[in-house]
Amino acid sequence: MMKISVVQFSPLLLEYKKNLDVVSKLLARCDADIVVLPELCVSGYLISRREHMAACSERPGDGPLFQVVHDYSRASGAAVVAGFIERAGEVFYNSAMLVAPGGLIGVYRKIHLFGDEPSLFRAGDSGFNVFSIAGTRIGIMICYDWRFPEAARVLSLKGADIICHPSDLVAGAHLWKPVMQTRSFENRVFIATANRTGCDRAGDTELCFSGYSQITDISGKILGELGGKEEGICTVEIDPLRARNKAFSPRNDIFKDRKPGFYQPSR
Amino acid sequence: MMKISVVQFSPLLLEYKKNLDVVSKLLARCDADIVVLPELCVSGYLISRREHMAACSERPGDGPLFQVVHDYSRASGAAVVAGFIERAGEVFYNSAMLVAPGGLIGVYRKIHLFGDEPSLFRAGDSGFNVFSIAGTRIGIMICYDWRFPEAARVLSLKGADIICHPSDLVAGAHLWKPVMQTRSFENRVFIATANRTGCDRAGDTELCFSGYSQITDISGKILGELGGKEEGICTVEIDPLRARNKAFSPRNDIFKDRKPGFYQPSR
Repeated sequence: MMKISVVQFSPLLLEYKKNLDVVSKLLARCDADIVVLPELCVSGYLISRREHMAACSERPGDGPLFQVVHDYSRASGAAVVAGFIERAGEVFYNSAMLVAPGGLIGVYRKIHLFGDEPSLFRAGDSGFNVFSIAGTRIGIMICYDWRFPEAARVLSLKGADIICHPSDLVAGAHLWKPVMQTRSFENRVFIATANRTGCDRAGDTELCFSGYSQITDISGKILGELGGKEEGICTVEIDPLRARNKAFSPRNDIFKDRKPGFYQPSR
Repeated sequence: MMKISVVQFSPLLLEYKKNLDVVSKLLARCDADIVVLPELCVSGYLISRREHMAACSERPGDGPLFQVVHDYSRASGAAVVAGFIERAGEVFYNSAMLVAPGGLIGVYRKIHLFGDEPSLFRAGDSGFNVFSIAGTRIGIMICYDWRFPEAARVLSLKGADIICHPSDLVAGAHLWKPVMQTRSFENRVFIATANRTGCDRAGDTELCFSGYSQITDISGKILGELGGKEEGICTVEIDPLRARNKAFSPRNDIFKDRKPGFYQPSR
């Protein structure tokens, strides 16, 4: 058994230092083996100008957010997944870092970019990958990846027990929550969606985020969730190894029953 | 605009002639452009002995169910999708026929077999295919295909406007209904699930079916549904061409945004 937390709050747009401080304080309140923070959790989301990005970005394993998260990880023993602007030379990615007490374990670069993101970020180029921490296999997807069944599917086929899903979802909770329940159900995998709250404003544009962070079990049941506006932490206890049994009856196993030969639209 | 109906009833196990009569009477009450009947709609489901199958089976376009359906189709102008035991030499498939006034348009052989079905049926070997009738593109999947996101996905990628889904679902309606809403939502496709009701008994075994047949629109909204036990017909009006627009905003199109290069678990 292990504990997993989703952390929900409202980052202030471009207020990197203030957001870092909030993250640090929220982490200090966590008591879990895995903690998931939202997408772009210290920069805010509605960045309209590329020149603002560098100051809110960092290279993997080398920056203020990594430092805060790693300090917490070393002190607590927890693994942390946190969304951030990844700087790679002249290019930025909408990424999530996975950090354990020993350091940076991996980075996921968001593959499906949403809305205006392509004007700021390069699309993820390193695939959906699963990382093992203390015997638990962790997959990562970010926000808009939710709409594509292939994201959770490929992570699950690669062996993920838990999919950590940092998000800044603008879709209503009534839309994304049942879909994420389906993602858990159809893959028999745990999913922890850490969604932000509040609104970002830039010029005449305002974007609001739908909160209601949730953790679902392998049957799609919501084990724990937060409200639509509150800052908070939701923690549940799970047995991640349950995700390795893809059989729901003696005769049916949702992975063994797959027929990949018929899944190519070009055939 | 066009009308689509799902027909729900409780076939009597191995009572082929009685069931044909029920189908004929239910079809006579339909008023739609497409009518969807349940899986194995004239044989019943819980067939325990292979020797019982031949008498309840037919070859595509050549049998009593085809005749009833084709007579109705010619008289009404409607297309009909109906589940049946397909006989092919010594082999049986759990199939669905698509019949239009001009005759048999196509047959889908169930790809994902459920429970004990592999002891009776050969798994479908002809893929997921889309058939065009009067400009509307119809995909077919059967029952347990619901659990595999790839089924509705590949049909939608192949251009289906409407997925007709004859079913004998034993899963509770609280499980399959929201998943089928997700299938519509994630593919922006109409889906008509015609599920049977009642129970089949064979020896000490009883299997009950969950009814609640439904039709969902491209947003996943349930446009019409039936109850858990009633025999009946649910008819809704839809514009199938709406399924061809995969964009939900000026910047995001759920098909153009796909990144198939990252969807292979072997990469």
